Amino acid sequence: MSKKLILVTNDDGITAKGIKSLIEVAKKFGKVVVVAPDSPQSAMGHAITISKPLRAKQVNIFQDVEAWECSGTPVDCVKLAIDKMLPRLPDLCLSGINHGSNASINIIYSGTMSAALEGAVGNIPSIGFSLLDYAADADFTASKHFAQKVIEKALNSGFPKSKLFNVNIPKGEIKDIKGIKLCRQANGHWKEEFNERIDPFKRKYYWMTGRFINNDSGKDTDIVALENNYVSVVPVQYDLTAHDFIKEQENKWIF
Amino acid sequence: MSKKLILVTNDDGITAKGIKSLIEVAKKFGKVVVVAPDSPQSAMGHAITISKPLRAKQVNIFQDVEAWECSGTPVDCVKLAIDKMLPRLPDLCLSGINHGSNASINIIYSGTMSAALEGAVGNIPSIGFSLLDYAADADFTASKHFAQKVIEKALNSGFPKSKLFNVNIPKGEIKDIKGIKLCRQANGHWKEEFNERIDPFKRKYYWMTGRFINNDSGKDTDIVALENNYVSVVPVQYDLTAHDFIKEQENKWIF
Repeated sequence: MSKKLILVTNDDGITAKGIKSLIEVAKKFGKVVVVAPDSPQSAMGHAITISKPLRAKQVNIFQDVEAWECSGTPVDCVKLAIDKMLPRLPDLCLSGINHGSNASINIIYSGTMSAALEGAVGNIPSIGFSLLDYAADADFTASKHFAQKVIEKALNSGFPKSKLFNVNIPKGEIKDIKGIKLCRQANGHWKEEFNERIDPFKRKYYWMTGRFINNDSGKDTDIVALENNYVSVVPVQYDLTAHDFIKEQENKWIF
Repeated sequence: MSKKLILVTNDDGITAKGIKSLIEVAKKFGKVVVVAPDSPQSAMGHAITISKPLRAKQVNIFQDVEAWECSGTPVDCVKLAIDKMLPRLPDLCLSGINHGSNASINIIYSGTMSAALEGAVGNIPSIGFSLLDYAADADFTASKHFAQKVIEKALNSGFPKSKLFNVNIPKGEIKDIKGIKLCRQANGHWKEEFNERIDPFKRKYYWMTGRFINNDSGKDTDIVALENNYVSVVPVQYDLTAHDFIKEQENKWIF
């Protein structure tokens, strides 16, 4: 078998500590090409850049790894990599390791997960990784250990039809983490709490803040796994149809 | 019953023709408050603004309607409206009418649909509307007619548990449109085709372009409904878990 081709990206930007850790893990599985944002793009969701052009520049910041920094969003990076940088569709797309949780509803706001989702939509087996630690100097030792285990498992046991996993890793040392759990996305939401301030010119402005609310009492969710010091692995799909509603209401909606 | 409170937003910006049309329809159902982006925010997906503050300014551009323009993304607008502008959680959140299709995979890139999804996550019955016409001066006559019918139907027959519909309307006059169909999201993707150019300073830049590929042979999809001149109504949910994979692999993933 020829060597695997692996695209690595993230949303914290190409100089973040998390992507360096993920590249070190990815190199064990094949030839790595990095295409990542040139600046932090957290919470960019599935944004793409259509009203202005994109720039990309090859940079020499990772040992023996072809790397490009791109002016766009995480999803832009994946699209540009597929069309321009990569010699063929890669065998794997890895995104992260994100600084901060992407469990539960965070998946829809997350640039990290949107990049991985874009890979999966493009038919590339993809995994997004996040560590539950927002610190720029977070310790990724345990994350690297478990990311490697998850990649090995996914390559051996197979991906879901939709080709995507959302992996979240608790903060702590390897010995503190009890194992890896396949689980579902917890039903939760953020309660907005905007911080209102007045600028030096007497005009109002707002900082977005909020509180996460877990609306889910189930024990099989990513939130519960993480609370109990397990790595959460959610197999992800992107058919947003509420099929049960169609079944119930089909006959009532013909008009 | 007291009058319904209705939040209206969009992603094309508060001066777009489509939001004016939607406000005219919304006013028939209750008291409307508009909180919409101050500039075009197409393809912003579920992006939120966390690295800079937001601004909001009350504007007097719609007759007898409280309206705010906001410096953020469509999702920011919904969050800010809930926390700051609205006296209580609204009874309905309407987004659009978007200039351009949000059928199939477009839902994940769409600022229009992300705003509606944010409403639904916040427990507000929400509907996103799009007209299959990108022109700034598109004719919204038929869209208004069918948007009203869909809102009436949703209020009478109920929303899905997840409280969200994605409505796409074909281009044409009322008489050209055959009816309204409840359908599922077609499985499709965009094939990237970046347009590569050289700037006056001899540096490369890229414009994102692409072709939509329908990977779905089913007849019950939004794409097929629209091709046959029906309004497509997809009930939407946002649990991205691939539940079938969990069922299949649960026992293989304990380690």
